[in-house]
Amino acid sequence: MTTQPSASPRPWHDPTADPADRVRALLDRMTLREKLAQLYGVWVGIDSGGEMAPHQHDFAEAALDWDDLVRHGIGQLTRVYGTRPVDPVIGARSLARTQREIVARGRFGIPALVHEETLTGLAAWQATVYPSPLCWGASFDPDLVYRMGARIGETMRRLGVHQGLAPVLDVARDLRWGRVEETIGEDPHLVGTIGAAYAAGLESAGVIATLKHFVGYSASRAGRNLAPVSVGPRELADVLLPPFEMALRAGARSVMNAYIDNDGVPSAADTALLTDLLRDTYGFEGTVVADYFSVSFLYKLHGVAAGRGEAAGQALTAGIDVELPTVDCYGEPLLAAVEQGAVDAAVVDRALERVLRQKCELGLLDEDWAPEVPDEVELDDPESRALAREIAERSIVLLRNDGILPLSPGRRIAVVGPRAHEPGAMLGCYSFPMHVGVHHPEVPFGVSVPTVLDALGEDHEVTYALGCPVLGGEDEDIAAAVAAAKEAELCVAVLGDHAGLFGGGTSGEGCDASDLKLPGRQEELLEALLGTGTPVVLVLLCGRPYELSRQADRLAAIVCGFYPGEEGAVALASVLSGRINPSGRLPVGFPGEEASQPSTYLTAPLGLRSEVSTVDPTPLFSFGHGLSYAAVDWDDVAVSDPAWPTDGQCRLRVTLSNGTDRATTEVVQVYLHDPVAEVARPVQQLIAAKRVDLAPGATEVVEIGLHADLTSYTGRAGKRIVEPGDVELRVGTSSARIVATLPCTLTGPRREVGFDRVLAPDFG
Amino acid sequence: MTTQPSASPRPWHDPTADPADRVRALLDRMTLREKLAQLYGVWVGIDSGGEMAPHQHDFAEAALDWDDLVRHGIGQLTRVYGTRPVDPVIGARSLARTQREIVARGRFGIPALVHEETLTGLAAWQATVYPSPLCWGASFDPDLVYRMGARIGETMRRLGVHQGLAPVLDVARDLRWGRVEETIGEDPHLVGTIGAAYAAGLESAGVIATLKHFVGYSASRAGRNLAPVSVGPRELADVLLPPFEMALRAGARSVMNAYIDNDGVPSAADTALLTDLLRDTYGFEGTVVADYFSVSFLYKLHGVAAGRGEAAGQALTAGIDVELPTVDCYGEPLLAAVEQGAVDAAVVDRALERVLRQKCELGLLDEDWAPEVPDEVELDDPESRALAREIAERSIVLLRNDGILPLSPGRRIAVVGPRAHEPGAMLGCYSFPMHVGVHHPEVPFGVSVPTVLDALGEDHEVTYALGCPVLGGEDEDIAAAVAAAKEAELCVAVLGDHAGLFGGGTSGEGCDASDLKLPGRQEELLEALLGTGTPVVLVLLCGRPYELSRQADRLAAIVCGFYPGEEGAVALASVLSGRINPSGRLPVGFPGEEASQPSTYLTAPLGLRSEVSTVDPTPLFSFGHGLSYAAVDWDDVAVSDPAWPTDGQCRLRVTLSNGTDRATTEVVQVYLHDPVAEVARPVQQLIAAKRVDLAPGATEVVEIGLHADLTSYTGRAGKRIVEPGDVELRVGTSSARIVATLPCTLTGPRREVGFDRVLAPDFG
Repeated sequence: MTTQPSASPRPWHDPTADPADRVRALLDRMTLREKLAQLYGVWVGIDSGGEMAPHQHDFAEAALDWDDLVRHGIGQLTRVYGTRPVDPVIGARSLARTQREIVARGRFGIPALVHEETLTGLAAWQATVYPSPLCWGASFDPDLVYRMGARIGETMRRLGVHQGLAPVLDVARDLRWGRVEETIGEDPHLVGTIGAAYAAGLESAGVIATLKHFVGYSASRAGRNLAPVSVGPRELADVLLPPFEMALRAGARSVMNAYIDNDGVPSAADTALLTDLLRDTYGFEGTVVADYFSVSFLYKLHGVAAGRGEAAGQALTAGIDVELPTVDCYGEPLLAAVEQGAVDAAVVDRALERVLRQKCELGLLDEDWAPEVPDEVELDDPESRALAREIAERSIVLLRNDGILPLSPGRRIAVVGPRAHEPGAMLGCYSFPMHVGVHHPEVPFGVSVPTVLDALGEDHEVTYALGCPVLGGEDEDIAAAVAAAKEAELCVAVLGDHAGLFGGGTSGEGCDASDLKLPGRQEELLEALLGTGTPVVLVLLCGRPYELSRQADRLAAIVCGFYPGEEGAVALASVLSGRINPSGRLPVGFPGEEASQPSTYLTAPLGLRSEVSTVDPTPLFSFGHGLSYAAVDWDDVAVSDPAWPTDGQCRLRVTLSNGTDRATTEVVQVYLHDPVAEVARPVQQLIAAKRVDLAPGATEVVEIGLHADLTSYTGRAGKRIVEPGDVELRVGTSSARIVATLPCTLTGPRREVGFDRVLAPDFG
Repeated sequence: MTTQPSASPRPWHDPTADPADRVRALLDRMTLREKLAQLYGVWVGIDSGGEMAPHQHDFAEAALDWDDLVRHGIGQLTRVYGTRPVDPVIGARSLARTQREIVARGRFGIPALVHEETLTGLAAWQATVYPSPLCWGASFDPDLVYRMGARIGETMRRLGVHQGLAPVLDVARDLRWGRVEETIGEDPHLVGTIGAAYAAGLESAGVIATLKHFVGYSASRAGRNLAPVSVGPRELADVLLPPFEMALRAGARSVMNAYIDNDGVPSAADTALLTDLLRDTYGFEGTVVADYFSVSFLYKLHGVAAGRGEAAGQALTAGIDVELPTVDCYGEPLLAAVEQGAVDAAVVDRALERVLRQKCELGLLDEDWAPEVPDEVELDDPESRALAREIAERSIVLLRNDGILPLSPGRRIAVVGPRAHEPGAMLGCYSFPMHVGVHHPEVPFGVSVPTVLDALGEDHEVTYALGCPVLGGEDEDIAAAVAAAKEAELCVAVLGDHAGLFGGGTSGEGCDASDLKLPGRQEELLEALLGTGTPVVLVLLCGRPYELSRQADRLAAIVCGFYPGEEGAVALASVLSGRINPSGRLPVGFPGEEASQPSTYLTAPLGLRSEVSTVDPTPLFSFGHGLSYAAVDWDDVAVSDPAWPTDGQCRLRVTLSNGTDRATTEVVQVYLHDPVAEVARPVQQLIAAKRVDLAPGATEVVEIGLHADLTSYTGRAGKRIVEPGDVELRVGTSSARIVATLPCTLTGPRREVGFDRVLAPDFG
């Protein structure tokens, strides 16, 4: 008879033990029902009394019984702060009580992993609302976005939230799609660089970043939300997947599937995507969480499963580890399916192992774990506001300027338009006020959001007229705006979108467009203002680019802020008045006259203007475009050696000088042109971009090391390759303004490159 | 020493010899240069003096030297009749002289294989212009289209043309594309059924039908001609390829590649498509001919080849047997590439063998072959005109009727609009007058094309006003049309497209649209006419559906003719006046208010109206819609047995009765709904349609046998499968008007089906 060393009754609680052993100890002890409880999330909300309860939503046909659920344990809680406007301290205390209950009532004492939306800051009442992702893209400033991510992550941690449901890494493909506002732009390198910085920032605070939506959502047919996608494997590999690769390598620990079906296969049931690619090729070890209700959608919408149990089995087997935000499929239906042998119990353990390992990493399995209970929380402190303002200042894009800007102080300005004096105009659809607060009109935003009218009023003599709402409107209001413009020295027209959800806005989730005309009567208002003869400066607060080609030449200036966040108006006023020199660059092009969609700058030759089609897709303002008040001189653009080893670097050098007395910025953009390849490649494609801030009189030599892997693409055989041969580096200030074209020759053997390829330039 | 039997010096000339031996004899004797000469086409044209010469076009950088070419032989001649307006007898004689010269001057005495466009009839001056393909689709009458194909084939044969460059089997995917007018519609079953009938008709006359464009052209991004395509393999297999499979099995002997690149790979260089699928899977033994200049496009536009020789090598190796209409790549550049060893000589022989085998089949290798030299040719004889009229009569679609139609004789009608009195309005872009004649305004159309004004004037008291041209126009012309409408009992507004090429029209090759508004000021004209209070009947002559939702409810009637051909106006007048009962059904839906593209009825659930997108893609008039003047009663819609063997038939039965005193027509449409499948399938999909003509008082029992193969689709593993399980047969008069839903259960084993699957219903 041998004696086993006496094991602790709760070995998973031991923080000194090997995590794998801790996880294994739980796997060995849990019932199937308890295992499943770790694999779903419950959408909860804290009511005004500070009590938390499961949130009832349209898709859960049966009301959830908390007592029935909690005895099995509860793996995940979602939308704790983001469901109702609740004081954050009350919320944190309620969450702590709930966590204690979960710990106490389950057999294993495991708290829930807590999720919340974090697209423009933590989606909680009174939390700072940062600029939306198009602004991050426009900043071309990954360090700044990293800082924002880290700050958001700290806030989350203080409030007991472990996982942020951002960033969105979808590459914009069709500007009609309502969720374009949530993307970082139309270029995979930009989306990947900035998205990875955000994810790394969140992760630096110890919280989990969630990369979404994996993959193809932005390519929905005709830009209609959730509509089927049909893209080939090469477009996936070279356009839609690279941002995910970049952010995974930056340390993101969770991935969320896309709602769509691509070529018939829903992402939530796509084994090739979620397991073969993500796990086996990329080596990802974190969790895959379901986009909300997307497991149910397998039987409700896609028609690939006959019911809940089958949907659960398909999703779990494909690689969805956690169903959110409901127990619709992964609860009783999955239990029955496993018990009947329809679903392999091993896939339950596979998902569970991932979830528990992550809980272990987060300290949630430690014996001494206790929920955070802050005594006070300031979610919109001055430092956060300053950071929000800095991002806004660095992302506002000056699209056109006939010299009217910057404005000297004390001008007599008519500030008109539906977005001129509306705090919500500054905020994207996934901000708390627009996403949740909109259903609680009795509750103020929670944060102060000055409007453009407010901010311009600080420096100038302003009058205000609505002109028209975003949608609809009356002739007399347009006439009043015209009258105001006539009386003024100049008119600042603030037009754009109302961010909303599912028809509650003109941009945002479910708010798709059938064309790219300014919503409602806004173009008519703009024409009426132009008719006054008073110079008109157009300020756009919008979730997507709109058609401006009919008016652009007649506008004195055009400034685009997208949704610049709670400090956006202050930043805009600074730009208009010249305190800040505009430095944003477009992450998405503005359409030309014909505005056919889909259309992005990233296209093979025949996707551009050609003599074989009457429809010209040339944008009015191209990807990467943005003006400033102080021009930068470019000199000595050169590569150190035009012979570029297929496994080595090409070093690019540019000398930038600011001969003015104003601080200014250049974004050096490097595009690759590959004249002959195995497949039709984009005519030009961003492979590096460096934002360079230049003090008055400053000169800087910018060096960029470009690894040959940046020239790689997916060839005929489906492998990513670097090929020897001639290419051009097109270096410029936008995709349409190339300053220098540098021929290079890739020399050496053809190479296959994998997930380990070099994805980012090295800034020497 | 053995003695060989004395071989004929020209064994390929012997019609009694085995064709393979005849071809082999040539292969053994030809120089490489002579071989290549068989593999390209020369675009020729007959001038007004009756002389033929190579046509100089933009893409041929060097002028062709006929004498230099002809000594090697000339394999193919293209556009003999379709380049200039030339008397067909003069043309035929010129062609005969040219053929004799080719026979005499090449070493082997092989005449050229002669190609011509045949989309709406032979593209020759004075030849009958039949209705365009959308009309064929609208007729739902494959027998009639077969008769047209056969008649066109006879005409071709008489004129020495061996190969017709039709039918277009692209399935319409985006209505903005200018070439939608050349398609048969948006449903693969309809396109395949009708397209196969046309091809079989041509082939029945001994001429070669050319299936085009293989494959994916209609899915060009944003509907821009030649723009890149990105479709997955399942969409290819289940939507875009089936019409080709159907027409190949109907005996078509040539295939033309598509211009586009799909997911980066140009069709012209796609070995997987042109060889693995077309040859190895489908077993096709005919020729693959290049769409015009598409081999050159590999280096000029797609950027996948560094020059002519490389382009030639890629295309030939992939499976393009014949370069058209130029020697740009397959001439000297391919010669050099083969001589240098860059291209395998075996692929030259592979293509040559196909070409020569086809020439052998056509009798072109026979010793006694001599060109046809007709003494007189009547290309627009009364029988052809009658056939053209019959197709028009059976394809005109009555979209809406508030009871105003049919019109009693002698009405006082204002006939207005840019298409009311314009013969070209009846004709599609690939008709001779619109394709070629348009460049020769000094030459009349060659055939008589009455206008709607002419035809209505036969029965009614008509006044005419232009209103506006198709594009542009003056206020006073609109006012004059309004005045005319006010004076009349009713107004017939004839609006639509001008078919043209590359910017010469509003529909047709290269004439893409950025939205689906009626071109120019036509919607404004329509509104002005509606404002008069006079009832307005809208007649559309158009290459694509347009947005009518803003006016439809106020229009007294809407009749769509697409391009109904030279007898179209007579047919339209017959429909309006009730001599003919309208019986066409829409082969493409008309868009609803939002008109987002791409959008077709054939979509998985999330492509339809949904609560997750504000944009509603529901069409105003759906695929299959069409009214008549006499309703048909439906009774006893049933299946003989709801248990449907996965390898057997389901027999569907409908009793149709015409209780009126007017001959009428029903098109029984059978749609499949598969509630649960391995992949997201179209919510409904046409699997059978039967046009039934009913005399006054007649009753007919329609039986349709549906093989289970018609339920097949491409599953997760990429194989086409028939699965056991529940399906619904939705039987109705359009995709939006289902009369009966019949549940069936496929029983038996899951089956894989291949190219040999049953593609058509059996009409019992």
